[in-house]
Amino acid sequence: MTPEQDPAFAFHRGGKVGISPRVSVRTPADLALAYTPGVGRVSQAIADDPSEARHYTGRANTIAVLTNGTAVLGLGDIGPEAAMPVMEGKAILFHRFAGIDAYPICLDARTPDEVVAVAKALAPTFGGINLEDIAAPDCFEIEQRLQDELDIPVFHDDQHGTAIVVGAAVMNAARLTERLLSELRVVVVGVGAAGTACGRLLHDLGVADVVAVDRAGILHRDLVGLAEHHRWFAEHGNREQRRGGVREALRGADVLIGVSGPGTVEPAWLAEMNPDAAVFAMANPVPEVLPSQVPDNVAVVGTGRSDFPNQINNVLAFPGVFRGLLDAGAARVTPAMKRAAAAALADLVDEPTPERIVPGVFDPGVADAVAEAIREVSCPPLSAISSVPGVLAGAVA
Amino acid sequence: MTPEQDPAFAFHRGGKVGISPRVSVRTPADLALAYTPGVGRVSQAIADDPSEARHYTGRANTIAVLTNGTAVLGLGDIGPEAAMPVMEGKAILFHRFAGIDAYPICLDARTPDEVVAVAKALAPTFGGINLEDIAAPDCFEIEQRLQDELDIPVFHDDQHGTAIVVGAAVMNAARLTERLLSELRVVVVGVGAAGTACGRLLHDLGVADVVAVDRAGILHRDLVGLAEHHRWFAEHGNREQRRGGVREALRGADVLIGVSGPGTVEPAWLAEMNPDAAVFAMANPVPEVLPSQVPDNVAVVGTGRSDFPNQINNVLAFPGVFRGLLDAGAARVTPAMKRAAAAALADLVDEPTPERIVPGVFDPGVADAVAEAIREVSCPPLSAISSVPGVLAGAVA
Repeated sequence: MTPEQDPAFAFHRGGKVGISPRVSVRTPADLALAYTPGVGRVSQAIADDPSEARHYTGRANTIAVLTNGTAVLGLGDIGPEAAMPVMEGKAILFHRFAGIDAYPICLDARTPDEVVAVAKALAPTFGGINLEDIAAPDCFEIEQRLQDELDIPVFHDDQHGTAIVVGAAVMNAARLTERLLSELRVVVVGVGAAGTACGRLLHDLGVADVVAVDRAGILHRDLVGLAEHHRWFAEHGNREQRRGGVREALRGADVLIGVSGPGTVEPAWLAEMNPDAAVFAMANPVPEVLPSQVPDNVAVVGTGRSDFPNQINNVLAFPGVFRGLLDAGAARVTPAMKRAAAAALADLVDEPTPERIVPGVFDPGVADAVAEAIREVSCPPLSAISSVPGVLAGAVA
Repeated sequence: MTPEQDPAFAFHRGGKVGISPRVSVRTPADLALAYTPGVGRVSQAIADDPSEARHYTGRANTIAVLTNGTAVLGLGDIGPEAAMPVMEGKAILFHRFAGIDAYPICLDARTPDEVVAVAKALAPTFGGINLEDIAAPDCFEIEQRLQDELDIPVFHDDQHGTAIVVGAAVMNAARLTERLLSELRVVVVGVGAAGTACGRLLHDLGVADVVAVDRAGILHRDLVGLAEHHRWFAEHGNREQRRGGVREALRGADVLIGVSGPGTVEPAWLAEMNPDAAVFAMANPVPEVLPSQVPDNVAVVGTGRSDFPNQINNVLAFPGVFRGLLDAGAARVTPAMKRAAAAALADLVDEPTPERIVPGVFDPGVADAVAEAIREVSCPPLSAISSVPGVLAGAVA
């Protein structure tokens, strides 16, 4: 198929998002309000009290969808220009599902130091930063440093958006098969950004054990020279300290989380999982195993694709997450928020079935429910606390 | 007037611009085009040929309106948060007058090194950068370095937008009073960003002499320790090497360009200017002299205000300038472009009168005429040349 024949190219021509005015400027009087001299009074009011930016600029509803293009979809390190269609797509989805103004921003910045410096400089423009398609392990350092140094929420969607939806899927697989999360052993295949966050959130949600398998095999304590995010799984997961590869990890396991690529999982190995196993094979566009390939002991199959049941798509999470964060004026994303978002998503399915383990992307109310969950567990930002006389002093005393 | 009573505050509530989708996402099929898997094919095509970003992203119509908030309007160094209403206002005007998607970006970045680093990192997102409200002399270094190091146009509007409109005003004042530019002595009061660019463009347009007056008085060659942008006026302007203050500069001059503040020019001094003098007193919101204060030898008065005739407002220039730059795929802003834009603006007034020396802000066709002038003198970017086989080799050989 050539670009001329591919409807995706026609769909993208000229870009997918633009800037639109919220006010019209038709007369000199309009101009005197939108621009000088009227705008000067508004700017002065914000200079006098920076928290007024929340009311008189778009900041409270505006986020950056920020990438350096080092890990775009399954395409890899294709650079900032080529990453833009993905960021624009994300911006559309933020608007469509949560009414958020998301600026797609593609950076010519390679190192964590560079990305952090630019993102920090951009922070006064935005109410939050959605990091996107940044390669592991840099993505961990970038997110951590930004969240520590900024007072707006920073959320790496490839990690936590995926993890929240996977968390919901695993919760509902447990409901469907009448087990507790604390009874489940989960195998994560592929320990990059998504795999790391999925494993950690499942651990936080109370899953009995998470066994992580990367290219070198199962992560365990005797391995030396592990990256920090791999070390975590060797220390906090793999309770039995298993050795081997994916097959050995899957033997007697309850859930497979595939965030690797095609060819990493033999369908026959799934027969050695426990009865009523759940398989979430999310490699895109070709899943680790196809729904048609799973043996009978597998009760639930999900993929990243819209043409099979149970699409595990982080669009179920990120619009609502940021809607909630912005509404709450949250200063950061907490583990409790991620757990709450996963639970809210799971709850949207009244009665899970093998064909409906998570809500559909276009189901009404998904983003609202996630946003509500985030708001409920959100603490007010420090600036809001400290603006109430005595509160902060009281807390310190 | 309290914020509650001031219509400017109501006008700004919630911000003045937002992001809007150009395509709708209503079905799974739409989602498969806007996002994975369709978007992946488009991103891969741009990875294979980065110039395709021009067709399949918004970049070719998107600019940054970028500030660090160090010299906002007449308010000074009020910081990035407080600068946002001004940048949003600018974004609206880019959209209203030239259909450009302008992202308001306010940076927490103080030094030229910081601003340059961030702007360079942002460049893959934009087809051009409009610098705004950055204090002199940093603005000169920032603009120069960015223009030297990037292959997209960089334009500091406070400098060149103002200069282009002033250039048009002076050209039409000369037409009205039947003189040549090469006969005019111009006095620039206030040698910051705007004054520097006005003086240089008038010099480029062939004005006989430009005498610049800063706080310390007329700039001349014997002054030591002058900033570089002041040194230029001491060397290239002030042909008679006058000494003194504004009054001495104005004696026998033809044009006053006021870009300083109220109180720098005594109305009585204007009587010592030549007959048929032109006075452009653009301090905002209070001009250096009011139209009602000028003596009879002054034939034309302009200010920055909409409530007097002859509003010298750079909104006459910047939308058309960037429309032309983007349409041409220009890699940089050249002096020839600025001269052409000024001439095009002047030409829009068929017959200058004392009350109509420049077009009105809402006159139809202003941005189109400026854009056309820019396109006509624009050279194709190097990347476009080098993509034609043999052309660059031929040029070198």
